[in-house]
Amino acid sequence: MSGVRSVDPLAVHFDDRGLVPAIVQDADDGRVLMLAYMNAESLGRTIAEGRTVFWSRSRRELWAKGDTSGEVQHVVELSLDCDGDTILVRVHQDGGGACHTGARSCFDVAPKEA
Amino acid sequence: MSGVRSVDPLAVHFDDRGLVPAIVQDADDGRVLMLAYMNAESLGRTIAEGRTVFWSRSRRELWAKGDTSGEVQHVVELSLDCDGDTILVRVHQDGGGACHTGARSCFDVAPKEA
Repeated sequence: MSGVRSVDPLAVHFDDRGLVPAIVQDADDGRVLMLAYMNAESLGRTIAEGRTVFWSRSRRELWAKGDTSGEVQHVVELSLDCDGDTILVRVHQDGGGACHTGARSCFDVAPKEA
Repeated sequence: MSGVRSVDPLAVHFDDRGLVPAIVQDADDGRVLMLAYMNAESLGRTIAEGRTVFWSRSRRELWAKGDTSGEVQHVVELSLDCDGDTILVRVHQDGGGACHTGARSCFDVAPKEA
């Protein structure tokens, strides 16, 4: 990540669950792909490995994006917002898309029924 | 909002605080401007009024974006993600920018010290 705009993990304001929302945006065309959550460990791994690692709130475990699907997100840039409580991650997206449905963006599909 | 892609408020999965994160993206150039939170009432007003209304977690009140700053965000499109727990709002941004710092995007500025 040397030379790449990144974030200082110490500047991040994690919420009372220890999480921060991370918006993932395609660096090539600007499309917003998904939103997921990071804890301090997943943010550290994202910075160190140069690809997105999240905290899965449903599975309650680290989630290295692409480990099972092949849809790795290679980090181009990490930015923290003005009050330090949201991260924007600009990526090169491997594979067909970011969404577990197969769509390129999680915002391209109608939500499933509750 | 007739003819505009919108979301069904009943399909939104609000969290245990009654909130859903809303990513605001500039519809013209794709820039991610900010992330804020909506409750059911602010989402309803956003849909009805065609401009963003959020729930301010710090002030604990509805926050009609632009009422004091003039930086109204006119809604172009609302999309819900695949699991119904994040909203993407594509907007035309009035004024100089979305951020209280004067920046065009909240991700354009270094975070203030904690």
